[in-house]
Amino acid sequence: MKDIAKRFEQNPLLSPKDLPASTDGLQITCLLNPGVFQYEGKTWLLVRVAERPEQKEGVISFPILTETGTEIIEIPTNDPELIATDARVINYKGVDYLTTLSHLRLLCSEDGINFYEPKDYPLLVGEGMLETFGIEDCRVALIDGKYYLTFTSVSDNGVGVGLRTTTDWKTFEKHGMILPAHNKDCAIFEEKINGLFYALHRPSSVDIGGNYIWIASSPDGVHWGNHKCIIKTRKGLWDSKRVGAGAAPIKTEKGWLSIYHGANENHQYCLGAFLMDLEDPSKVIAQTELPIMVPSAEYELTGFFGNVVFTNGHIVEPDRDTVTIYYGASDEFVCGAKFSIKEIYSLLKFNNV
Amino acid sequence: MKDIAKRFEQNPLLSPKDLPASTDGLQITCLLNPGVFQYEGKTWLLVRVAERPEQKEGVISFPILTETGTEIIEIPTNDPELIATDARVINYKGVDYLTTLSHLRLLCSEDGINFYEPKDYPLLVGEGMLETFGIEDCRVALIDGKYYLTFTSVSDNGVGVGLRTTTDWKTFEKHGMILPAHNKDCAIFEEKINGLFYALHRPSSVDIGGNYIWIASSPDGVHWGNHKCIIKTRKGLWDSKRVGAGAAPIKTEKGWLSIYHGANENHQYCLGAFLMDLEDPSKVIAQTELPIMVPSAEYELTGFFGNVVFTNGHIVEPDRDTVTIYYGASDEFVCGAKFSIKEIYSLLKFNNV
Repeated sequence: MKDIAKRFEQNPLLSPKDLPASTDGLQITCLLNPGVFQYEGKTWLLVRVAERPEQKEGVISFPILTETGTEIIEIPTNDPELIATDARVINYKGVDYLTTLSHLRLLCSEDGINFYEPKDYPLLVGEGMLETFGIEDCRVALIDGKYYLTFTSVSDNGVGVGLRTTTDWKTFEKHGMILPAHNKDCAIFEEKINGLFYALHRPSSVDIGGNYIWIASSPDGVHWGNHKCIIKTRKGLWDSKRVGAGAAPIKTEKGWLSIYHGANENHQYCLGAFLMDLEDPSKVIAQTELPIMVPSAEYELTGFFGNVVFTNGHIVEPDRDTVTIYYGASDEFVCGAKFSIKEIYSLLKFNNV
Repeated sequence: MKDIAKRFEQNPLLSPKDLPASTDGLQITCLLNPGVFQYEGKTWLLVRVAERPEQKEGVISFPILTETGTEIIEIPTNDPELIATDARVINYKGVDYLTTLSHLRLLCSEDGINFYEPKDYPLLVGEGMLETFGIEDCRVALIDGKYYLTFTSVSDNGVGVGLRTTTDWKTFEKHGMILPAHNKDCAIFEEKINGLFYALHRPSSVDIGGNYIWIASSPDGVHWGNHKCIIKTRKGLWDSKRVGAGAAPIKTEKGWLSIYHGANENHQYCLGAFLMDLEDPSKVIAQTELPIMVPSAEYELTGFFGNVVFTNGHIVEPDRDTVTIYYGASDEFVCGAKFSIKEIYSLLKFNNV
């Protein structure tokens, strides 16, 4: 299927082999889903780095964080109490675990294509009892000179959204979990609206409801309320099973534009877009019926978890029409692509028109 | 199994036949899970009233709220796209519905045993797109002269926690959904701690995690953050499958005491208790290993959904030892029972002692 994304010729920009593991005894399995921001004249990625030990025949092994450091759990693959049908999550003795442990790593670039690890910047790793299975898929929003990092915090307590803030990318203030389980894909708007912070987020329901995009508001960016469901999955379409917001919505003349991911029953992850009212972003005024990006390049079809394009970071270029997205392909590679906002608009179907 | 609850001889205090339905064409199926408070010298219940049309042979019918009023949905029981194995929730064409529509109704009593509907007080009903399947299981917390009502808001968007406040029980201020899907069992503490509101709540996880009790804090009671998981289900015990807080925790000398419900794999709902640190209620310092109340009376064993005792309302008596709980039995009746806090304490197992 043809789409309107202009992929970088240099894709994939980053592969697991391009970076050293964080810890002796671990390997990088996936490099994916970067948060993106501009800082000191450069383009920066906050890449999710998923690690595990080298896998040996007959054993599944994965790391978790404990109070004293990293512990490796090993389970024989023939253990009758092991369920390992998903590359990402396994169940052992009735308890779910991730097959990899993720942290977030800073990379920067002068040209937006060639990225390297700058000296003297810390890794962002899981801390405390709500992040023992790691932190993932960070969105970065710049508001009044402060960067707000919203990421998925994973532990045996559940999956929720954590917040840290920074101004210098060397020291970080922790604000705990701002959205409790089960929640992820939280993108804070980069501008207050009528004095309030706004954020998109994606709770999941065990029954009644689904994997839908919600919006919430906050007086301080830390405490959230007035939750409303604004985008649902659509039966029979490419986003029939789950939807989730990408990076911070883009302010345009006609409304706040969100690039989001949608997955179908076959776990194919595509990208689409929707538009929210400028004054009241809980009102969705348009949405693409077709995806704006569909996994089609080789690196999007084959990898750790194939048939996936997933974005949680972008740069709006100075022409205010070009959006450069960085995205995870097949849950294994970091790639780049450009969209024209005008072209996205041409695919939007407006409500009540 | 013997427990330490002293049930009212007059139980059940209220049965579906005791009240008129809210709407022509509906019947009251269940009267259950009252919020409880004292007001103008009386004991008040805010009872959940679950209604549906009289069920006819071969058809399942249930009401939902729409923008124009109440609509009845009818589904032939032999429709191959109907799954109706749970008395409370059905699935039709892949979408979940409740079999009954709940609203909240005020009853009051001079003696705490004989309750009646006072004149000139409104019904509390679902309003807006987040409450089309009704509102349920309200907790009432009195803070600085204002009553905070936290209840389950149900719609096809999901199940979350709504908040309304009142001072006179005739006019109510709506604060929207304070905790997004999937969440219920929210009990606000009746006193601020170090300047912050605190609440217990119960998110549910689709994978990784479970049905656990969390705590959150808030500057204003409306916007919530700093979520932490504090009580988990316990394998092999009576609370192995789900746990959820009852009414507002009770301030005692040794800590904040919460009476909570736990269910096992067989959907038997019992009550237990745990104790939180007075200064930092995210620290659990003790918990009962045994339940303090187990379904055993006839009206607790048999009804709309049998083998259930569930409380979300209580009064602490002037002796500061007696707690009168009101509770839902078998999801069909409202009952009462008394506990001695001293006796609950005797069942608490303290951590690190």
